[in-house]
Amino acid sequence: MPRPPFKVAQLGAGRMGMTHGRNAAANPRLDLAYLIDPRADVAVGFAGEIGAAVASFDEALADPDLAGVIVASSTDTHLQAVLACLTAGKAVFCEKPLDLELSRLRDSEAAFAAAKAPLYVAFNRRFDPQFQALKAKIAAGEVGTLETLHLISHDPQAPPADFIPTSGGLFRDFTIHDFDTARWLLEEEPVEVFTWASALVDPAIAAAGDVDTARTILTTGSGRLCVISNTRRSGYGYDQRVEAYGSAGVAMAGNVHVSTVETWNAAGAHAAPIHAGFADRYGDAYRREMDHFADVLAGETAPLTGYDASVRSLALAEAARRSVQTGAPVKVADI
Amino acid sequence: MPRPPFKVAQLGAGRMGMTHGRNAAANPRLDLAYLIDPRADVAVGFAGEIGAAVASFDEALADPDLAGVIVASSTDTHLQAVLACLTAGKAVFCEKPLDLELSRLRDSEAAFAAAKAPLYVAFNRRFDPQFQALKAKIAAGEVGTLETLHLISHDPQAPPADFIPTSGGLFRDFTIHDFDTARWLLEEEPVEVFTWASALVDPAIAAAGDVDTARTILTTGSGRLCVISNTRRSGYGYDQRVEAYGSAGVAMAGNVHVSTVETWNAAGAHAAPIHAGFADRYGDAYRREMDHFADVLAGETAPLTGYDASVRSLALAEAARRSVQTGAPVKVADI
Amino acid sequence: MPRPPFKVAQLGAGRMGMTHGRNAAANPRLDLAYLIDPRADVAVGFAGEIGAAVASFDEALADPDLAGVIVASSTDTHLQAVLACLTAGKAVFCEKPLDLELSRLRDSEAAFAAAKAPLYVAFNRRFDPQFQALKAKIAAGEVGTLETLHLISHDPQAPPADFIPTSGGLFRDFTIHDFDTARWLLEEEPVEVFTWASALVDPAIAAAGDVDTARTILTTGSGRLCVISNTRRSGYGYDQRVEAYGSAGVAMAGNVHVSTVETWNAAGAHAAPIHAGFADRYGDAYRREMDHFADVLAGETAPLTGYDASVRSLALAEAARRSVQTGAPVKVADI
Amino acid sequence: MPRPPFKVAQLGAGRMGMTHGRNAAANPRLDLAYLIDPRADVAVGFAGEIGAAVASFDEALADPDLAGVIVASSTDTHLQAVLACLTAGKAVFCEKPLDLELSRLRDSEAAFAAAKAPLYVAFNRRFDPQFQALKAKIAAGEVGTLETLHLISHDPQAPPADFIPTSGGLFRDFTIHDFDTARWLLEEEPVEVFTWASALVDPAIAAAGDVDTARTILTTGSGRLCVISNTRRSGYGYDQRVEAYGSAGVAMAGNVHVSTVETWNAAGAHAAPIHAGFADRYGDAYRREMDHFADVLAGETAPLTGYDASVRSLALAEAARRSVQTGAPVKVADI
Repeated sequence: MPRPPFKVAQLGAGRMGMTHGRNAAANPRLDLAYLIDPRADVAVGFAGEIGAAVASFDEALADPDLAGVIVASSTDTHLQAVLACLTAGKAVFCEKPLDLELSRLRDSEAAFAAAKAPLYVAFNRRFDPQFQALKAKIAAGEVGTLETLHLISHDPQAPPADFIPTSGGLFRDFTIHDFDTARWLLEEEPVEVFTWASALVDPAIAAAGDVDTARTILTTGSGRLCVISNTRRSGYGYDQRVEAYGSAGVAMAGNVHVSTVETWNAAGAHAAPIHAGFADRYGDAYRREMDHFADVLAGETAPLTGYDASVRSLALAEAARRSVQTGAPVKVADI
Repeated sequence: MPRPPFKVAQLGAGRMGMTHGRNAAANPRLDLAYLIDPRADVAVGFAGEIGAAVASFDEALADPDLAGVIVASSTDTHLQAVLACLTAGKAVFCEKPLDLELSRLRDSEAAFAAAKAPLYVAFNRRFDPQFQALKAKIAAGEVGTLETLHLISHDPQAPPADFIPTSGGLFRDFTIHDFDTARWLLEEEPVEVFTWASALVDPAIAAAGDVDTARTILTTGSGRLCVISNTRRSGYGYDQRVEAYGSAGVAMAGNVHVSTVETWNAAGAHAAPIHAGFADRYGDAYRREMDHFADVLAGETAPLTGYDASVRSLALAEAARRSVQTGAPVKVADI
Repeated sequence: MPRPPFKVAQLGAGRMGMTHGRNAAANPRLDLAYLIDPRADVAVGFAGEIGAAVASFDEALADPDLAGVIVASSTDTHLQAVLACLTAGKAVFCEKPLDLELSRLRDSEAAFAAAKAPLYVAFNRRFDPQFQALKAKIAAGEVGTLETLHLISHDPQAPPADFIPTSGGLFRDFTIHDFDTARWLLEEEPVEVFTWASALVDPAIAAAGDVDTARTILTTGSGRLCVISNTRRSGYGYDQRVEAYGSAGVAMAGNVHVSTVETWNAAGAHAAPIHAGFADRYGDAYRREMDHFADVLAGETAPLTGYDASVRSLALAEAARRSVQTGAPVKVADI
Repeated sequence: MPRPPFKVAQLGAGRMGMTHGRNAAANPRLDLAYLIDPRADVAVGFAGEIGAAVASFDEALADPDLAGVIVASSTDTHLQAVLACLTAGKAVFCEKPLDLELSRLRDSEAAFAAAKAPLYVAFNRRFDPQFQALKAKIAAGEVGTLETLHLISHDPQAPPADFIPTSGGLFRDFTIHDFDTARWLLEEEPVEVFTWASALVDPAIAAAGDVDTARTILTTGSGRLCVISNTRRSGYGYDQRVEAYGSAGVAMAGNVHVSTVETWNAAGAHAAPIHAGFADRYGDAYRREMDHFADVLAGETAPLTGYDASVRSLALAEAARRSVQTGAPVKVADI
């Protein structure tokens, strides 16, 4: 006998909100009942599309049948909204990041520890089928003992200049995914971070005090090493790869191409391009994240990433930022 | 303003029926209202899963709001059921084949010509993203003028022996997809067929008077050639490829692997395997077929394949069968 | 103690003659002492390059120290020259074909049977490292029992129109390599041949009574099948592949690309092209053929291909030609 | 009119000496006349194989016809031998490194500056066809402006423990190739070096005070970044790749596999392994280095790498070593 779907609300109908809202609406285990967004026209339009009712945050939380909330509003509202939901006993799916300020997160530690409902923070790459297949190979011992990692994460083109000042900077906005991926695959905490970074892409990024091209090395207590390669503009698509080197071999998760079609002609040998951006590349991952939230709501699993993963990744981002400033390695314990 | 979904019924809840029923239930443009299956327990179970009501065929057709019917019952019932639906003015999505007997199809020509509702016969490969990408390359002129085709269609393992006698034989059951694909890509009718075939896989297949390994060549009026490679048992997965050679190059649609992960170790260099069977390989195609049916119901397009495509592919299958019997090429006009 | 090199002569300094002559000159086990070519200026020039003396055919054969002769003169001189060498007790490396006329070869059967020196006819693909690696996989049982083959052999562009009339036609000039490869890999004689062919590339080819695009199927006594795909003009390079399907899997020898370098940019994903022609693609094979000749001269092995292989491949070519003429399969025993 | 070959001598018949000696002997532009090796039996044996006379160093240098010397003796003899040759006016092909001690090299600066004959120091990777093809893509602008590099250089298995103490350590023995490759591709001098390294492979390596696993970042004056990935033991072969990221795309030189053959069966999809070690992987590069030496002898080109490249690469190696010791970035100017 299938159980009825879990009633959920969604906060926010921006770009990622629309992705998560559509996935929730299409998920047979979820009933997306309420949409909350301060922009009335946006709320009405998207609520219509996904078959939800427009509501206020308080109205939604007041519904005793509401099991959970998808928090996809602007980043600066996440922390307060999440804590309100948890206090109300509602499970939370929070689009990353939980917050951009490490100190603020740490200040809330007790509140999170006291929460009675589960919190899932959406680090989508842990749900990517490619990276999960890679992790399964490592777990199956096909590379021996994992020793070093190389994470390639290159955005196709730089974001609009006005996004940079609010982004939190390259490391908290972008590399944070790689820090989480590194922790997930290494299964050991990085203890020290070194980063060199440049602004090679867009002078506006430098003017905003940020960087756009970075190479980071993490080292763990046991001497394992992880290189993270980042750029804001690859010029060739959304490059997302992982190479995992072990004592007995290597496993490599390659890019996903838009098709398998190759064309050979007088102009050479061509493959289909890789995906142009995150929406296509991680479409499956976003759907599977929502399924994970349904699992969490069903009590079948604890959230894979929550407060602790958020704090730890943000500390690594902060260490990277400090390393760029000081030109020296930074101990995570000092953050 | 989005239009309300089209009310549809489904006939049959076997293996393909469950695939199509789930896709219809998940399609926001369709309202799968009725499920019809003579096996009461199966009907109740699957109707519950997809949120449809169990009904009789007559009850469903009597509903004036019913826009279409998905015919996925056993092959020998297709023709009669489809004609009943069309007579009742309901659009039809018919799992292939429309019928296994060419003479019977031809006898119904007038009835199909008189039909007031559209008929889509589900040749799934035309909706495969890989093959569509290949066709787009040809259309864009990237291989010049298409001259020759090579279709590789290898099943992973032979079907149960008791399936063979009811299957219609290799050519009408299996190669028929390749015949349709060839017509679709060549955009010209094959005029002659030559096939050599053997029973190398399972003695039971030979005992049933069928073959399991075949190579077929089609030729068109303008001298273009198409090779079709078939086996009932590849030993390595479900091999589905197309190579399209033209005056200026070649386009090749390769297999889809289950992931991009490669592993290199002392045992060599390994890629992820190709898909094990049609359910995974053509999952996207099945979903997109259902979307095509919604387009047909919306009057946005004529069905891509219907009575004519069914007759023409079946004639090619019949020609291949006769070629194996006679050991000589067979003109399609003689079928 | 290394043995001194074998003294050899070479007949002919055309395109293939220059390839073989350079390989012989660079082979430490051979001493290329004489070059014979009726064109005095060509003979002097190439003899200078390879460090050989210009000689007449009779002078060379009269040297009692001469161990072998490389016959690379024009095709119509091969048969007579080879028999003269064998009669003189000189081992022969003969560029393929031994002759273009099956009847003439068969008329010489007794002469070849009586020869006291070994004859190697240069079917170069048996020495290609890719195809040898493929054969080793088959021999190691990695595909189970070999059941079907697919040979792709596509020339990059059509030869000059004036070559066609003297070429022997597509099957004796070009496909003959595939017939030999099929026999080598199948290790069973084809018993029947079916070919459909067209002239799609160049009207001059049709005007000369030849074809340029062909698909051939061979079948063996045990029902195994081999498809051969040929064109005189691929538009994308020299496409040379073999796919070997067995009861437990498939082994595929792919094309060799000119480098491993891939480039991804806004225009897509590019690989290096495949080799443009036989000189690059089979450079290693030609060198290894010459080494095989040294092995033959040393008595370490019998020639891998000689009179028998030449006759059998030519019979298959003749069967293919007749199949095109008659539009029906042709039994090899009837040739 | 071809010119006569250049008379050369070779010093040393160890592992690399035998490689270079065979290439010199097979090169039609070189006449390898003398072999010098203190081990009489080795000298006689190898001289016989390559057709050279056994000689003393002084005898060889005294030959007025001698144009050049290949120095492939033990590393600690290189500097003195090279200077002796240059003083005698003989061009030199010196197996890398010119010396392991930066201070010693710098002390000899005036002597090298005064040399009248050219010195080529054999950094083989600049002659690898894959890396040259990559550099050509960069030069052709296919990746826009080069911004970052990733060099992967992984040895298949750790050297014997007794080699480590005499090796000069990971950076001077192994990474030095990558330092030279980085300089060659960046066409800009690295100004600062950061390295983290571990001994994960073999306790004997740690006991000898060396490391076996390292990640190095170089930065240039313009902010371009280069990551070098090294291990002494990959467990999967000799992994040699370069990825060059630019403002408009990426070019990647992949590994060379031993064949193009793929095998798919119930155990998955397999490719041929990559080369097992440097002898196979760089066989072409070694041959082309010798051809470069012939070009140098002919006065057609200056040596691609000599004293300056040796000093600069060694300085980077020294900086990496110091970075590991201090745990901080090291400015090249401070070395």
